[in-house]
Amino acid sequence: MTVMASLGRRAAVEFVGTGALVAVVVGSGIQATELSQDVGVQLLANSLATVFGLGVLILLLGPVSGAHFNPAVALAAWWTGRRGREGPGLREVAAYAVAQIAGAIGGAVLADAMFAEPLVRWSTHDRWAPHLWLGEVVATAGLVLLVFGLARVGRAHLAPAAVACYIGAAYWFTSSTSFANPAVTVGRAFTDTFAGIAPASVLPFIAAQLLGLAVGVALVAVVFGRPAPAAGDVAADFVVPVDDHHPAAAAR
Amino acid sequence: MTVMASLGRRAAVEFVGTGALVAVVVGSGIQATELSQDVGVQLLANSLATVFGLGVLILLLGPVSGAHFNPAVALAAWWTGRRGREGPGLREVAAYAVAQIAGAIGGAVLADAMFAEPLVRWSTHDRWAPHLWLGEVVATAGLVLLVFGLARVGRAHLAPAAVACYIGAAYWFTSSTSFANPAVTVGRAFTDTFAGIAPASVLPFIAAQLLGLAVGVALVAVVFGRPAPAAGDVAADFVVPVDDHHPAAAAR
Amino acid sequence: MTVMASLGRRAAVEFVGTGALVAVVVGSGIQATELSQDVGVQLLANSLATVFGLGVLILLLGPVSGAHFNPAVALAAWWTGRRGREGPGLREVAAYAVAQIAGAIGGAVLADAMFAEPLVRWSTHDRWAPHLWLGEVVATAGLVLLVFGLARVGRAHLAPAAVACYIGAAYWFTSSTSFANPAVTVGRAFTDTFAGIAPASVLPFIAAQLLGLAVGVALVAVVFGRPAPAAGDVAADFVVPVDDHHPAAAAR
Amino acid sequence: MTVMASLGRRAAVEFVGTGALVAVVVGSGIQATELSQDVGVQLLANSLATVFGLGVLILLLGPVSGAHFNPAVALAAWWTGRRGREGPGLREVAAYAVAQIAGAIGGAVLADAMFAEPLVRWSTHDRWAPHLWLGEVVATAGLVLLVFGLARVGRAHLAPAAVACYIGAAYWFTSSTSFANPAVTVGRAFTDTFAGIAPASVLPFIAAQLLGLAVGVALVAVVFGRPAPAAGDVAADFVVPVDDHHPAAAAR
Repeated sequence: MTVMASLGRRAAVEFVGTGALVAVVVGSGIQATELSQDVGVQLLANSLATVFGLGVLILLLGPVSGAHFNPAVALAAWWTGRRGREGPGLREVAAYAVAQIAGAIGGAVLADAMFAEPLVRWSTHDRWAPHLWLGEVVATAGLVLLVFGLARVGRAHLAPAAVACYIGAAYWFTSSTSFANPAVTVGRAFTDTFAGIAPASVLPFIAAQLLGLAVGVALVAVVFGRPAPAAGDVAADFVVPVDDHHPAAAAR
Repeated sequence: MTVMASLGRRAAVEFVGTGALVAVVVGSGIQATELSQDVGVQLLANSLATVFGLGVLILLLGPVSGAHFNPAVALAAWWTGRRGREGPGLREVAAYAVAQIAGAIGGAVLADAMFAEPLVRWSTHDRWAPHLWLGEVVATAGLVLLVFGLARVGRAHLAPAAVACYIGAAYWFTSSTSFANPAVTVGRAFTDTFAGIAPASVLPFIAAQLLGLAVGVALVAVVFGRPAPAAGDVAADFVVPVDDHHPAAAAR
Repeated sequence: MTVMASLGRRAAVEFVGTGALVAVVVGSGIQATELSQDVGVQLLANSLATVFGLGVLILLLGPVSGAHFNPAVALAAWWTGRRGREGPGLREVAAYAVAQIAGAIGGAVLADAMFAEPLVRWSTHDRWAPHLWLGEVVATAGLVLLVFGLARVGRAHLAPAAVACYIGAAYWFTSSTSFANPAVTVGRAFTDTFAGIAPASVLPFIAAQLLGLAVGVALVAVVFGRPAPAAGDVAADFVVPVDDHHPAAAAR
Repeated sequence: MTVMASLGRRAAVEFVGTGALVAVVVGSGIQATELSQDVGVQLLANSLATVFGLGVLILLLGPVSGAHFNPAVALAAWWTGRRGREGPGLREVAAYAVAQIAGAIGGAVLADAMFAEPLVRWSTHDRWAPHLWLGEVVATAGLVLLVFGLARVGRAHLAPAAVACYIGAAYWFTSSTSFANPAVTVGRAFTDTFAGIAPASVLPFIAAQLLGLAVGVALVAVVFGRPAPAAGDVAADFVVPVDDHHPAAAAR
């Protein structure tokens, strides 16, 4: 029997994880701009630090909260599992989203503090252009296809490395450098540094991400067909949190 | 019993996967040239994004279509398995090749769209020289040796990481930056950006790739001997697509 | 039955491992500054070399000594296990710390020797600022959360890759470039090169690390709850050294 | 029962593998110097390409020949196994060494051909200094400690990733950029490009490598104790080649 951690603890873990993720993204961006004049080198450092940090966070926190760190993923998990008993309910999605947004803001503030930047200063980095929005649609669709597709092919245990590598590629192949996450987008508005986004640019980014979410869910059906859900057909790290105290956790 | 997905769905997956691969290659090339003046930094970013993206694509889509994304690999799978019942038939190879070429063109167009480049503009990047053709022979031979060799030593489940790493090395150690793929070569002719190839340079590249394919198949026999094919002796991710609905997929 | 290596041998292994770690950090820093003028490129090389080297060291030496290479980790292992019979005693922690500090100094001297630098010259690199100390608190807290959290979710066998990746990210997202290790901090005072730290800056760094250790231990309880320790609930690579001669070691 | 491939085929595989390794090292060095003016970026590209390429080669060819690609490793395997029946005999070591040296020269010529360089031109890159020789001692000792240590702790199946990562670190933390291989050293004398070594510098490098080999063998005993060799206590990828046709190969 697998016992799930309480919603309160899982939300706390989503707060910690999303905060850590944004601290990695924002902090490494600041460090990179302090050390190099070459923006290519800056984004290399920023993207590699994110690959390393995100992979570790999913590996460590996935067994407790599912390691979504992303309201779009939580929403997709609800949608995908809405007819069964596997997925989260809307109440859980709401609790996750609140924790994720709060964590993202906290992570940006922490990164600013570590680099002696003003703790909160609205970003002046405009990211407003149709081709950037297309980039966010593609980035989010790809993320959803990956997360739920891995579950469909029985490889969800590889999500830590796979999701981290995907984001590492998406930093470069999408014009928007792949935010792909409404909570992280909000958090990054609070810092006027390399990884920031001007508040006025936030809403279109989130709209594009939600569109990408829908595209991604459709792509899962196209690529993997409609599921006849089986017992083993679940996303271990992303969709079904398990009790970390339970011996079963150690068996995976 | 393992049930294979329909040819139509598998071809659709090859379309999606090859398109995504070319979008990664072309898109990251555009981003890199926008951000850095140092061509070494540009190719570092381009190659690392490809390593991350290609590994994820094979991991995710391998269980459905085999994740060839490459007519040369499909052709080699047919040749290698032509006397048994494991490999694809020529009709499947043709369907795969059409889907791969269409996907590659679509991926180039998508990358151009994400970066506000003209959707289609023939590349003006001449890649015409005997030493580049030798590079393509070596790159393709190495790829074939790797894909079919992994199956021979029972390590085909590591193909996602291994093929991605191979391409990451081949970007650098071959003079042609390792196209090694006729479909991707065609797709990259449609974009006049970092990763493009002038249409006039396409045919010799493909000829070199087919020569490399033959060299690679010969190398497999030299290195691994002639096989007495056993039940377990198959390339899980590259040669034998399995039904992703089936519990057996989860057991791997 | 698992037989532990003698304390003498385990301390010798901690000496070798910590020495090798510091040689990697200091040596790659020297090489990087000799080859590039771009400090971003220098830190990319320095951090990637550390990721590669640290992962290998934990993989290789973990089964013998636990591969702490860090008095803070040894101290946390004692604290975490103080009520059971799993963790080390304070005498072992002391032996480890002495070996680690001696090893760290030896590693710095070895790196200097390999690059024809003066074998010992106090670093003139001041690292004295409150935001750097905050960076060390965060870096050490994250390390402790990771090492002991992995044990709690039954993924301690992935510690070599996870800890290496964490440090690779922390080089960039913390302002201090993440020393996170009192022994390594002492060792790096002995070299006046890229990775050095002025002797006057050492004590506040260590104080911040110890504060981070406390924060990390608290975070483990918040994120993973209070444990009802089970037999399988141990950090294979970090907390419980096993006899490498014993067949059980090969079974993992 | 595990059937070993014939010595002739294993030597052929060592020829192919060592040749491919040198082609990766030399070829990526040429590409890097053609694309960037920043020597740090050049060595980043060179080292990352080697990490990717070497890991793949050991993964693919290890099950056939042991994937030594290095007379020093073959010699250490003979020494370590000389009292049992596991290790190679001196006749095998000699056959391997000849194949490795021939392969290394062939790989350098192939890389030159791919980049339209003169096929053979003695390197003019002097690498003659005591601190470089110390670098080679350290690099080779570390390699031997790793390869044979992994076997001692039952983790030889991770040798492909571990050895590749080690070399990636050693490129940077040793002053000599870690040749650590007599055959590769000879091969790299045949190309007057980035990775070359002047013929006059070859012998002291090889002498340092042999000294490092002795240090490494001693370190294995210090760190892991004297073995009471057990059946499972072997280096799967490095010391005991197995028949790739045999089902047992697939079971690993």
